[in-house]
Amino acid sequence: MRVTYRDTDRMGHVYYANYLVWFEIGRTELLREMGMCYRDWEEIHRIFLPVSSCSIDYRRSAQYDDQIRIETRITQITRATVTFSYEICHDVTQELLAKGQTKHAFVTEDGKIARVADKLLPQLFNL
Amino acid sequence: MRVTYRDTDRMGHVYYANYLVWFEIGRTELLREMGMCYRDWEEIHRIFLPVSSCSIDYRRSAQYDDQIRIETRITQITRATVTFSYEICHDVTQELLAKGQTKHAFVTEDGKIARVADKLLPQLFNL
Amino acid sequence: MRVTYRDTDRMGHVYYANYLVWFEIGRTELLREMGMCYRDWEEIHRIFLPVSSCSIDYRRSAQYDDQIRIETRITQITRATVTFSYEICHDVTQELLAKGQTKHAFVTEDGKIARVADKLLPQLFNL
Amino acid sequence: MRVTYRDTDRMGHVYYANYLVWFEIGRTELLREMGMCYRDWEEIHRIFLPVSSCSIDYRRSAQYDDQIRIETRITQITRATVTFSYEICHDVTQELLAKGQTKHAFVTEDGKIARVADKLLPQLFNL
Repeated sequence: MRVTYRDTDRMGHVYYANYLVWFEIGRTELLREMGMCYRDWEEIHRIFLPVSSCSIDYRRSAQYDDQIRIETRITQITRATVTFSYEICHDVTQELLAKGQTKHAFVTEDGKIARVADKLLPQLFNL
Repeated sequence: MRVTYRDTDRMGHVYYANYLVWFEIGRTELLREMGMCYRDWEEIHRIFLPVSSCSIDYRRSAQYDDQIRIETRITQITRATVTFSYEICHDVTQELLAKGQTKHAFVTEDGKIARVADKLLPQLFNL
Repeated sequence: MRVTYRDTDRMGHVYYANYLVWFEIGRTELLREMGMCYRDWEEIHRIFLPVSSCSIDYRRSAQYDDQIRIETRITQITRATVTFSYEICHDVTQELLAKGQTKHAFVTEDGKIARVADKLLPQLFNL
Repeated sequence: MRVTYRDTDRMGHVYYANYLVWFEIGRTELLREMGMCYRDWEEIHRIFLPVSSCSIDYRRSAQYDDQIRIETRITQITRATVTFSYEICHDVTQELLAKGQTKHAFVTEDGKIARVADKLLPQLFNL
């Protein structure tokens, strides 16, 4: 990803909430590489992954026009939840800019815990 | 509205797309003052107002922590469309920062032109 | 604060990164009530408060056009850092929507730890 | 570009202000392809390109996870201004989603009109 003008704030850095957008892109693309399109989860399986908690440590700031890299892993998975971990790195200097994690519940359209074991967990475990 | 850090970019000004968010707030609050809650249009009447065009002139830039004022008027209304005009002013100096307009279609959930004359136009005309 | 269209995502909820914008508004307004304008810190004292870490628990989702309330407190302060805690509540139902905290370093323009004890801490402690 | 969750609103479409972010990406990448890094204009030449006006027509809405393409051209250039035109297309169906333009002034750090003829116009004209 390249840092756009929109991402910056008057300090000249990337605004702190925008790292969470990169987290979102990281987990979506990780799922896509694993053969799962999150859009299909929502539109076909009617399974949603709202965030239940998020934490992030900011190490160094990304600047306008920097090229950054998002590294995403699944670090925990249960019948009801999945946790993703992220590292945001500067793509040229390789410096770690931020790291964090998000925990998500599997829920149905009406907000109930989804039993995804049959449908999705096999896909997730057969990495 | 007060300009937040998020609204700014590395030039120290408000990022140019964010004026359109103020336009949105302006038209929503104008409708609310006229006795119409736009959320109800969507959720009760199932009538939506997607933007079909937008134009904006930027005169002076708003800065971080400035207090700004949004002045909104309905400048044209037809059976199928409504046009809002906006002026964004600095609330202390009264300077005009930007002016623009947005044109919207009245559509139903499936994207068809909504015949809103019976339901909503009487409200709009009885200003 | 009222939830705008921009704040929502296709699930109909407030997008998860936008709570961090509310946190920013909460701490800025808390400082203002304490007689300190954060803009002045930056522009007069040349002291900056970049975020070093952030965590958040999402309890219930805020919806479009909801009126929400941000409750902010300073929960820890040292010579080098300040920690703010936040609760986001629905202004009508009083439900807790999210809670979290951010930790900030006091730094100078060139990114060094600022010795703010003389200038700012007296203000902060004389609550 | 792929449409992220953050880009969408509760109608399920891309929020109307976000097209202006794509415009920004389009013009930045166009300049980069022409051998000019806009970041260098700001940081080395101290020349800035604030937007003076913007207009946009929305034809069809982009949806979550769609792959879109931004086509950008320079349609007018004077000693004091440059105008970019944009078409946003769906990358698979090739449908035109939106088209618009932005006009920019060349200014110096203190907001005065920059005489860029010597420095930058030769680059721009030697396409």
